[in-house]
Amino acid sequence: MASMLDTLVAKAIKIRDDSIAKVEPSLGKLPDPLPLNVTGIPAELLTKEECEITQTEPLDLIGKIALGELTAVEVAKAYLRRAALAQKLLNCVTELLPERALGRAAELDEYYRKTGKTIGPFHGLPISSKEHFSVKNRYVNASFVAWTEKFVTEDAHVIEIMESLGGVLFARSTQPQTIMHVETETVIYGTTTNPYNRNLSSGGSTGGEGALLGFNATALGMGTDIGGSARWPAASNGRYGMRPTANRIPMRGLIGPAAGAESISGAIGPLAQSRRTMEHFMKHVIGTKPWITEPGLLAVPWREAPLTPGKLKIGVLMTDDVVNPLPPVKRALNIVVEALKKGVPGWEIELVPFKAQKHDYAWELTSQLYYPDGGEKVLNLLASVGEEPLPLTKWILSENPYVKKQDIHSLWELNVKRDAYRTMYSDYWNESGKEDGHPIDVVLCPVAPGVACLHGTAKYWSYTSQWNLLDYPAATFPVTVVDQDLDKVEPDYEPMNEQDRFFYDLYSPEKFTDAPVNLQVVARRFNDDVVLQAMKIIENALGRES
Amino acid sequence: MASMLDTLVAKAIKIRDDSIAKVEPSLGKLPDPLPLNVTGIPAELLTKEECEITQTEPLDLIGKIALGELTAVEVAKAYLRRAALAQKLLNCVTELLPERALGRAAELDEYYRKTGKTIGPFHGLPISSKEHFSVKNRYVNASFVAWTEKFVTEDAHVIEIMESLGGVLFARSTQPQTIMHVETETVIYGTTTNPYNRNLSSGGSTGGEGALLGFNATALGMGTDIGGSARWPAASNGRYGMRPTANRIPMRGLIGPAAGAESISGAIGPLAQSRRTMEHFMKHVIGTKPWITEPGLLAVPWREAPLTPGKLKIGVLMTDDVVNPLPPVKRALNIVVEALKKGVPGWEIELVPFKAQKHDYAWELTSQLYYPDGGEKVLNLLASVGEEPLPLTKWILSENPYVKKQDIHSLWELNVKRDAYRTMYSDYWNESGKEDGHPIDVVLCPVAPGVACLHGTAKYWSYTSQWNLLDYPAATFPVTVVDQDLDKVEPDYEPMNEQDRFFYDLYSPEKFTDAPVNLQVVARRFNDDVVLQAMKIIENALGRES
Repeated sequence: MASMLDTLVAKAIKIRDDSIAKVEPSLGKLPDPLPLNVTGIPAELLTKEECEITQTEPLDLIGKIALGELTAVEVAKAYLRRAALAQKLLNCVTELLPERALGRAAELDEYYRKTGKTIGPFHGLPISSKEHFSVKNRYVNASFVAWTEKFVTEDAHVIEIMESLGGVLFARSTQPQTIMHVETETVIYGTTTNPYNRNLSSGGSTGGEGALLGFNATALGMGTDIGGSARWPAASNGRYGMRPTANRIPMRGLIGPAAGAESISGAIGPLAQSRRTMEHFMKHVIGTKPWITEPGLLAVPWREAPLTPGKLKIGVLMTDDVVNPLPPVKRALNIVVEALKKGVPGWEIELVPFKAQKHDYAWELTSQLYYPDGGEKVLNLLASVGEEPLPLTKWILSENPYVKKQDIHSLWELNVKRDAYRTMYSDYWNESGKEDGHPIDVVLCPVAPGVACLHGTAKYWSYTSQWNLLDYPAATFPVTVVDQDLDKVEPDYEPMNEQDRFFYDLYSPEKFTDAPVNLQVVARRFNDDVVLQAMKIIENALGRES
Repeated sequence: MASMLDTLVAKAIKIRDDSIAKVEPSLGKLPDPLPLNVTGIPAELLTKEECEITQTEPLDLIGKIALGELTAVEVAKAYLRRAALAQKLLNCVTELLPERALGRAAELDEYYRKTGKTIGPFHGLPISSKEHFSVKNRYVNASFVAWTEKFVTEDAHVIEIMESLGGVLFARSTQPQTIMHVETETVIYGTTTNPYNRNLSSGGSTGGEGALLGFNATALGMGTDIGGSARWPAASNGRYGMRPTANRIPMRGLIGPAAGAESISGAIGPLAQSRRTMEHFMKHVIGTKPWITEPGLLAVPWREAPLTPGKLKIGVLMTDDVVNPLPPVKRALNIVVEALKKGVPGWEIELVPFKAQKHDYAWELTSQLYYPDGGEKVLNLLASVGEEPLPLTKWILSENPYVKKQDIHSLWELNVKRDAYRTMYSDYWNESGKEDGHPIDVVLCPVAPGVACLHGTAKYWSYTSQWNLLDYPAATFPVTVVDQDLDKVEPDYEPMNEQDRFFYDLYSPEKFTDAPVNLQVVARRFNDDVVLQAMKIIENALGRES
């Protein structure tokens, strides 16, 4: 007789598989054996039109629909098929929503046919979301077997808004157990892999979106990020992803195990095919003034071009002094720095060193503040149906020396320490403007010590979680890919400590063949628009339109 | 032999008395017997010039200094003497700062003499602060005997800013035990009384500022408010006071027993002689962009005239359905409503009923969230030196049926309930715009069931604490004074419940002779500027310049 756990898992899997079976026409046979890099497979199994649609930059795609060159239904169908293929190859989907997506797309086409107008700035764009976003009349398990029968009757607020702007929700995607790994593995769905190299993780916790994105199987993903969860998967797949300042993008309708915990705030952010799609999302979602109906949000409007005209000062953080970036990441930093030194028309760019301010202590605080209950709630939820904690769950919860159960007073003390740390960091940032009155606008830094990681090894979050602790907005962009010649192991590298050694010992360029290499741009709290404008200038320096 | 408690108290009192003894020339003899209403006494004991200075509206006073008609030193001296007199009559000062104030004033005069310019928008204005604001090289006890020897070496951030804008800090003022009564009594300093009627409280917790303000012995007070603490004392003394949206006015350097508690945020707000002084404070403090050096603050600029031009929609809350307003407050509501119905040039004013949304439940949540530790920290601090909890401390802590010790999970659950309540309230507010697309801009409501209360009876905070729970900005303005003929007891009034009966039974107009009657204007989160613009229009309706 099947255990309750097996029964619940089977039910979730059936929902997923049934939803995929509805996608028509069904897909042809996969190549056997499968290559490690599966990004070439769509050209074999999808039509030329489907490939063209899904490989068109999303804002261009919106433009084509607005011009009547494509219909929303055609676009939704192409993405549904590509996402179905992604699932076969990468195990990244929790369910597709063909009926909802095609229904909505047909409405949009009808509206366009009648009025000659689009319904909003995302008219016809297929969008997808991480599993724990509420979707009307669907189950939302938030990665917990215990919750596989949790049925919700309203869309998450951000989904409501995105659909009102013309977006077409067509897919929901995988995330890890407890939503607190920066890889993606659950007891329910198994492991999600990376389209560029299936030996590698697609990142996490928004890993399903990361894989879809890397495979061009979504035009825009919506993820969450409390320690790197939007940026890791975007970076692991060579795409764009952002962790905005907390409470700018609507949070209502997210399902998770720590509702009411406030010491470190999660944030919803976009995972995108281009910088400008990411900006389009931020600008238009904030443009609806979501704080009017969700009172926890910040009433802070989006600014166009917030930088002081003509001047950009960038702090460059080459290492956090705990774990050094590995050769491909170090090379990416140098590529960008050299490009910036050559200059960007219209901008005076000043590069200054930015030194990590006790990032090891920041992680100590951060992990304590993630789990002031010592992780009890999560562990109880797993135990309630006999779900085993996976290795990365154990790593963050039980093997983490800082996690322990707090009482109200020790929680208050931790919050005070957090605020003191934030003040110290802000003072350091301000110091950079002491002489010229212009503090650095952004920091350029790694997203992680390495690129997309080998499964089960993402045991260092500090390059991303650092900015969550500070509530600084941060976004990632692609720079290069691992190069077998240029990114060799440095034979005489001396690790700084055990953590540093762990990552260095894992590394060799061969293991990470074809892996994209991303970097991160960070600004101070509320300066989400600064992050994206600075990223545009940096991409211009790299010779990209952006 | 004196107990440690007595020794510590004596030390604090000596600091106060020594500081007052330095104010020159010393004051003449007080009338004997003292009248209940002492607001006429300055005319007897101060010079005509001192009275004129201290009774000049503060922005006009700044204007006179800027024109060279008065010096900052003259103004500081006048306020120091009036505050010294206030202390003798009302027991509202914890210490005066004659050396600091006269030193700073002399610097300002020197600067003005040399350059012909003022140093900033508060040039020469005497300002005062509640005791728990850090003041450089002074003791800050935060009302706790245990902390009477706590010495601080930096000014609170807001004091730094106000001095950089030209303000002259000259006095520090009383606040109640635990800073959590809306009256003002401590074991250290005793009870602060109301200048209009010494049988009444000056309100609290910023009660010292309230008394100074009512006695025209400060030009601008700085208080804090987590349940009404800036608005009660302003209202009790017929003046202006505001509780801004949390984290708009700098908080660094406040000393209190619950640092790190975040479920309900306290806020610093102005207590002022006029609406425009209050606006001047908000606008210019926020104008310095304090979030750049205090990262917990909101980067939200001040807006001039944020209301839709020509249209103001006011929700009128006549009762919270738990405790009805007493006759003078009811009459004040009617005065304002009738004035608004007559119209204000340039404005279409629409009045709509606003119904309290479960304010009893709101108080249940609020008092739980004030003390998630069951009050342990505060009680331990008192016990550490044998300080007895005063009756109003017992009322809020031990006799409050909702206060109990939470663990991390139950705290999370309370936060979730709070957020659900905020959402429900926001939905109700939005409904008022369903038909015309223009939801109410502000709510007009009482500040309390009654006027300044009889000592020891302020056992109902909900008319103010309601807006703290919601994080809505709210400010109070004077309307009238208790009228012996118009504000009689209604003989056939039927109390709704025991709380309602408590206040009705306490009431008779005779007991509250000369007490000012204030009302409150409330807007949604972030709309601090809306509160003050709407208040201006309301004051215009009452025939005031504002």
